[in-house]
Amino acid sequence: MRDVAVIGIGTSQFGKFPDRPFHTLGAEAVRKALSDAAIAPARIQVAYGSRIFLDQITAQVVLRDVGIAGIEMINVENACAGGATAVRCLWKDIATGVYDIGLAFGVESMTTSPIAGKLIAQGEDDIDAKLGSNMPVVFALMAKRLMETHGATAADFAQVSVKSHQAAALNPAAQYRKTLTVGEVLESRLIADPITLLQCCPNTDGAAAVVMCPLDMARTLGGRPVRVLASVLQSSDYFFRKRDLTSFDAGRSAAARAYEMAGLGPEDLDVVELHDAFAPEELVHYEDLGLCRPGDSVALLRSGATSLGGRVPVNPSGGLLSLGHPLSASGVRTVCDVVQQLRGEAGPRQKEGARIGLAQMLGGNVNGLEMGAAAIHIMARD
Amino acid sequence: MRDVAVIGIGTSQFGKFPDRPFHTLGAEAVRKALSDAAIAPARIQVAYGSRIFLDQITAQVVLRDVGIAGIEMINVENACAGGATAVRCLWKDIATGVYDIGLAFGVESMTTSPIAGKLIAQGEDDIDAKLGSNMPVVFALMAKRLMETHGATAADFAQVSVKSHQAAALNPAAQYRKTLTVGEVLESRLIADPITLLQCCPNTDGAAAVVMCPLDMARTLGGRPVRVLASVLQSSDYFFRKRDLTSFDAGRSAAARAYEMAGLGPEDLDVVELHDAFAPEELVHYEDLGLCRPGDSVALLRSGATSLGGRVPVNPSGGLLSLGHPLSASGVRTVCDVVQQLRGEAGPRQKEGARIGLAQMLGGNVNGLEMGAAAIHIMARD
Repeated sequence: MRDVAVIGIGTSQFGKFPDRPFHTLGAEAVRKALSDAAIAPARIQVAYGSRIFLDQITAQVVLRDVGIAGIEMINVENACAGGATAVRCLWKDIATGVYDIGLAFGVESMTTSPIAGKLIAQGEDDIDAKLGSNMPVVFALMAKRLMETHGATAADFAQVSVKSHQAAALNPAAQYRKTLTVGEVLESRLIADPITLLQCCPNTDGAAAVVMCPLDMARTLGGRPVRVLASVLQSSDYFFRKRDLTSFDAGRSAAARAYEMAGLGPEDLDVVELHDAFAPEELVHYEDLGLCRPGDSVALLRSGATSLGGRVPVNPSGGLLSLGHPLSASGVRTVCDVVQQLRGEAGPRQKEGARIGLAQMLGGNVNGLEMGAAAIHIMARD
Repeated sequence: MRDVAVIGIGTSQFGKFPDRPFHTLGAEAVRKALSDAAIAPARIQVAYGSRIFLDQITAQVVLRDVGIAGIEMINVENACAGGATAVRCLWKDIATGVYDIGLAFGVESMTTSPIAGKLIAQGEDDIDAKLGSNMPVVFALMAKRLMETHGATAADFAQVSVKSHQAAALNPAAQYRKTLTVGEVLESRLIADPITLLQCCPNTDGAAAVVMCPLDMARTLGGRPVRVLASVLQSSDYFFRKRDLTSFDAGRSAAARAYEMAGLGPEDLDVVELHDAFAPEELVHYEDLGLCRPGDSVALLRSGATSLGGRVPVNPSGGLLSLGHPLSASGVRTVCDVVQQLRGEAGPRQKEGARIGLAQMLGGNVNGLEMGAAAIHIMARD
């Protein structure tokens, strides 16, 4: 296996753009990533695209706009972890020497998708969903359990959203750039007790892209390469076998494997981007990622360690909650934001001296599965 | 790179099954492939699933039925070449040593899809399609050109369908098991001059799966491994740059690369399975694959060399035209059928002494592209 580096990152604006076809969002992100890497489109040898609400061949259509054609192109889908899956596939191609330079991107136009304005579709044959166990409900159950086992309060969950919005207010790419108070979050419309509207990620249109190559090559290209220390993707077991509502087995297992692959531990992380589709979820990931000891997630949040300026800022981008969540784009976007931190280019959201970061993305909490896909990438400043 | 072998194949029945959810079709094919390989589900380390009309996480949902969970699972889409893309991804993982045993499958339930009974959807932003250039029309233009440049007649195109139905009549898995005459094909309803209804592939529900591992391991497992000599996947250039309507540049280029990778030429092939979504198309592929010299495709068809019992039978399975075309399944199914031939297990459709075979699949003749994906796998009896 060769060491792999991220040499280019690019994201579109995140928000609601009903007049922009998906491929213009994708092309915007890809063009920025190529420009950031200072790589001509003709040097790209392989491309992975991800999108859930596809008609067909998303990658080919997006890359048509950029002038890339004739190469191996593969479209991947893995629910919210589709973009992370594209990154993982590209990493495999480069680490194993199948290709030298490639790109991975994710894109979603949710305002023009078939389910615009609705809850995310559940599986067509999903008995749990038919009985009412839709996405906010699953996370509400998790939140209720956290209140019982962890002493979490409604205000703690609201604080996750407050923290997220504080960061997004400083991020020019974010969908929502407004700070909130705990009171405002708690007073917003109740969605699934105890989750209120401002604890749910919005529907978002957006795209993100990365360019990757072997580390050796990256060093000769003279940019600011960020090294990929670990790339892990796995699915979960069935939901009905789940023993603990305050942990995702797949997320925990993927994290353990990623730390082993990277040869480091959670104490080495300077910055984390993770899947905060619903505010209470962030507390669960603190423990699954080992950012604190089991049972200590509420204390970790309250300590401010995961806020901007803290020991290990979590979602300094604003996260899914306030930067926005264009499903398949998010798993690439988290990688972009960690890379930006490791380059020291995150401006007012910069974690001082960040050397090692982790991008996590989960997806597919449907169809009787605990989690269809859990993906983790650990990266380091070269 | 390690040599890779196909050690298990499985297909569901092909046809119209409005009462069968897609995952039961997929699970049927996967179970058969595992049983054929004599591999327990727990030994599968990675899985690729393909489906166009997805809700989300097709692979995870299908494999839930089979009792496979917790491993890396990736869903791929590449229009009609989605299944071939799944095979290609799995081949890469095994050839490069990322994993040792994995499975790839494709599945489509077209009778329950959002476009059931309609023409295949074109891209949402596809100007050509909006002007009427839908799938049968593109192939009708190709057919008209073949009549002018190659001396092809309407009866020749009909003969492709007659040949296909002769094979499918002997294939228990086929959707249509009825022989046809040239007259019957020509007298069927005109779809896009000169293409009649019986020269178009049907809408089909079905699935296909393969299990693959390193050749060295396959030899110790004591089955009947088939060696993969070449695996190629590429996209095309734009349609408007196409200079010759009687060739697919992407198909031709993928074939040249596959022959080079396999270290052999088209004269070495004993059997071919290819993308015959519309009958005239088969003549184009004869030349793009090098089965005859440029201009000789009509003569090759008329000679009977590509019929059952001929020098190099093409689509002895019945092909998309009469075995059926469950989009993302077809690119896995063609691999299954070539493997069956190379094992000498194709019964009355067997090519005597078949040693080397080629499975080709194209997809994504939409959105201004000549072909979104062209995939070729060349295999040999071990």
